[in-house]
Amino acid sequence: MVKQKIEQAFEILNELDIDLWLVIDKESELLTDPIMDYVVGTGVTWLSMFLYFKQRKKYAIVGNLEIEKFENLKIFDKVYAYKSSPRDFIFELLDKHKPEKIAIDYSVNSPAADGLTYGRFLELIELLKGSGYEKRLISAEEIISKLRGRKSEEEINRMKKAIDITLNIYDKITEYAKPGMKEKDIADFITSERLKLGLEPSWEEEHCPSVFTGPQTVGAHSGPTSKKLKKGHIFNIDFGVIYKKYCSDLQRTWYILRDNETFPPDEVMRGFNTIVESIQLAFNALKPGVTGVEIDRIAREYIVSNGYDEYPHALGHQVGRSAHDGGALLGPAWDRYGNLPFIPLEENQVFTIEPRLYIKDYGVATVEEMVVIKKDRAEFLSPPQKEIFLVK
Amino acid sequence: MVKQKIEQAFEILNELDIDLWLVIDKESELLTDPIMDYVVGTGVTWLSMFLYFKQRKKYAIVGNLEIEKFENLKIFDKVYAYKSSPRDFIFELLDKHKPEKIAIDYSVNSPAADGLTYGRFLELIELLKGSGYEKRLISAEEIISKLRGRKSEEEINRMKKAIDITLNIYDKITEYAKPGMKEKDIADFITSERLKLGLEPSWEEEHCPSVFTGPQTVGAHSGPTSKKLKKGHIFNIDFGVIYKKYCSDLQRTWYILRDNETFPPDEVMRGFNTIVESIQLAFNALKPGVTGVEIDRIAREYIVSNGYDEYPHALGHQVGRSAHDGGALLGPAWDRYGNLPFIPLEENQVFTIEPRLYIKDYGVATVEEMVVIKKDRAEFLSPPQKEIFLVK
Repeated sequence: MVKQKIEQAFEILNELDIDLWLVIDKESELLTDPIMDYVVGTGVTWLSMFLYFKQRKKYAIVGNLEIEKFENLKIFDKVYAYKSSPRDFIFELLDKHKPEKIAIDYSVNSPAADGLTYGRFLELIELLKGSGYEKRLISAEEIISKLRGRKSEEEINRMKKAIDITLNIYDKITEYAKPGMKEKDIADFITSERLKLGLEPSWEEEHCPSVFTGPQTVGAHSGPTSKKLKKGHIFNIDFGVIYKKYCSDLQRTWYILRDNETFPPDEVMRGFNTIVESIQLAFNALKPGVTGVEIDRIAREYIVSNGYDEYPHALGHQVGRSAHDGGALLGPAWDRYGNLPFIPLEENQVFTIEPRLYIKDYGVATVEEMVVIKKDRAEFLSPPQKEIFLVK
Repeated sequence: MVKQKIEQAFEILNELDIDLWLVIDKESELLTDPIMDYVVGTGVTWLSMFLYFKQRKKYAIVGNLEIEKFENLKIFDKVYAYKSSPRDFIFELLDKHKPEKIAIDYSVNSPAADGLTYGRFLELIELLKGSGYEKRLISAEEIISKLRGRKSEEEINRMKKAIDITLNIYDKITEYAKPGMKEKDIADFITSERLKLGLEPSWEEEHCPSVFTGPQTVGAHSGPTSKKLKKGHIFNIDFGVIYKKYCSDLQRTWYILRDNETFPPDEVMRGFNTIVESIQLAFNALKPGVTGVEIDRIAREYIVSNGYDEYPHALGHQVGRSAHDGGALLGPAWDRYGNLPFIPLEENQVFTIEPRLYIKDYGVATVEEMVVIKKDRAEFLSPPQKEIFLVK
C-alpha cells in the first residue's frame, strides 16, 4: 500500500507541477506527521527527511542507526544515513534536482496536511538559510488532500468492510436495547462486540461509541452517561471501527416505543424523515467539481425550512485512515472551517453525510451515512437508514 | 494525575516567571501535542486552546459540541464553547490577565516540547495579529522539559513496575534461548510474554524488542531478522513495556557458550566489563546541576581508552510516558542533539545509561540501565546487570 500511495503521490506532483515534496519527521513515537504512514510506512527516531521528486525519484535521509531499517523497506532509491547532521545529503539532493517548488506539510485549514511542527519548520529554515531553497517552500496541502482523498478500490473495500461490521453491531443493538438501560450499558455492549472482533474504534474510545438518549442532550462528542433509556424517547449512536487501517463512521437513530405504541408519534416521524430527506437531497447533488458549501446548504436549508434549528456543525467530512480524514469538507462558510468548504470535490473521495435536528421532548435525531463520489454522481457505501429503528 | 501535573505546571510557571502557557490542539486523532495527555487528559476535534495562567487560573476554549465533555472533566475554572471562532474568548482572557510572556509548544531541540504544528502557529498569529500579544510569544520548552522531567513518586513507582516486568521477561529469555534459534524467535517469545500481560511495547512493535546476535550487526533501531543464535556469539536485546502510561527501556547482553565452555572468552569478558564499568563511572557522576555532555564524556572516554570504538549515539535519554521522553540528554555535543546535552540535570529526572561497544568476532555488547536523579546523587531504578547472562 505504501508503494501504491507513493505512485499516486508522483502522479499528483506532476498534476500540480510541484518539483519536490519534502516530508520531515523526528521521534515519531512522540508525535508524527500523519502522512508518514502513507508514504514511508514506519516511524523514525532522529530528524529524518523523505524526498519525493516529480521525476519519480524518492530518497530517505535518516540517522545512522536506522539505515538498515530503511534499506530493508526497499522503498527508496537511496537511503542516506548521517551521524551528526543531514545537511550535506539534503544539499546534494537539492543541488542535483534544483527544485523550484518544494512542498512541506503545513496547512492552516487542513489538520491532515499539517504534520510539520513549528520547531521542525524552524530547523529546516536554519538548514536551508542562505541557499535560496528556503524561499521555494510551499504548502503540501493540495498534495496531501488529493493523496488522502483519492481512494483506490482496495481502500474503498476496506471501508466497506468496516461499515458492514458497524451496521451488524447496530442490528444487535436493536435487539439488545431495553428501556431502563443506561447510555453506558449500550456503549459497553458495543465495545464488547468490537473487542470480540479485535478491532480498534474509529476515534477515542471514551466517546466511540457516543450514545445520546432523550431530550436536552447537548450533542455529539461527549461520552455516554448514566442517563437511562426511557419509553417515548429517541436515542442515537455514533460509532465506527478501523478495519485494516480504514475507518467507518456511522450514526443511527432509535425510538423506544411506549406500552401502547407500535409506531412512533408524528413529531418523531416528521423529524426523522426530515433528516432522511435532507441526506437524500444532499446526496443527489454530489459529484466532482461541486463545493461542500453548496452541498451543506441544501441539507441545512431543508431542515430549517421544516421549522427545525440548523445543525451546529458541518454536514459531512471525508473518511479514510482517520474518521476525520481532512481536505474538502461538506460544511458551511464558518471561520472555523477555513477554506475547506470551498475546495471542489473529486472523484473517489469518501464523505459522511450527517445532519442532526432536535425533536422537542423526544431527543436528537441524527443519521450519518458514508458515500463515495463517482465520475458524475455519488454512491452510498452504507445502505442508508430510511426507517427509524424501534426498541420495544 | 492530570490535576497533579497541572499543579506542577503552575509551580513551574511561577519558577520561570512565565505568565501564560497556551496549549493548542485540533483534530487530536490525526496528530496531537504530546503534552495534551499531561495537562488536558483527552483530545479535541475543533481548534481548542487551553490556558494556564501563573495565577493558577486554567481555562479551556473548545468547539461548542465538546463543551459537555470538557465541563465533565472538572479540571478547568471555566470552559468556553465557540461556534464559529475562538477569537472573542481568547481576547477576553488575554485582556483580563494581560500576560507579558506567553509560552507556546515549539522547540527546535526537544521533540517532546514541539507539539504545535506550523499551521496551528500561523493560525494563532493570524488570530492575535495587531493585538500586540503576538510579540509576547516564547517557547514552552523549559516548562515542558521540567514538567515531563520531574517525576512524582507515583510516576517513579509505575516505571519501577514496568522495569520489573521487563527484567522478568529477560530472566525467561536466559532459559528459553538456545543456539539455532532466530532473532525473530526470541522476539516472538518476548512479544507473547508481553501480550499475556496485556501490555503495550514502549516503542514501535516492529523493533520492540530489537534482538541482535553475532558479529557485524549494524546496531539498534532495526527489527529482528532470521539470523540465528550461534555458539560463541553474543546477543543483546532492547525492550520495554508501558505500565499505566509509563515506560521501561532496558538492554541486556547474553553469551552463548561453546560446547567446551563454562565461561565466556576473555575478549568477551573484557568488552562486557568495560560496558558495566563505564555505566558505573557515569552513574557515579550523576547529580542535579551537572550537564549530560559531561556524563556522556565519562563513559565515552572510558570505552575509547580501553581500545574500543565510541558508541554512535547518546549515552542516555530521559524516560517517562515516552521511551524517549525528551529534555536534557546525556549526549555528546553533536549537531543532531542541539542544546539538549547542555541542559543541567534536575532532581527526580529519570535517565537511561546505555553505552555499547563492538567485540570483534563476537557481536555487540550493550547494557541499558534506568536511573533517577536524587538530591545529591543518582539511584538505580533497575538492578544493574553486572554479569553477562549465559545461554547453554
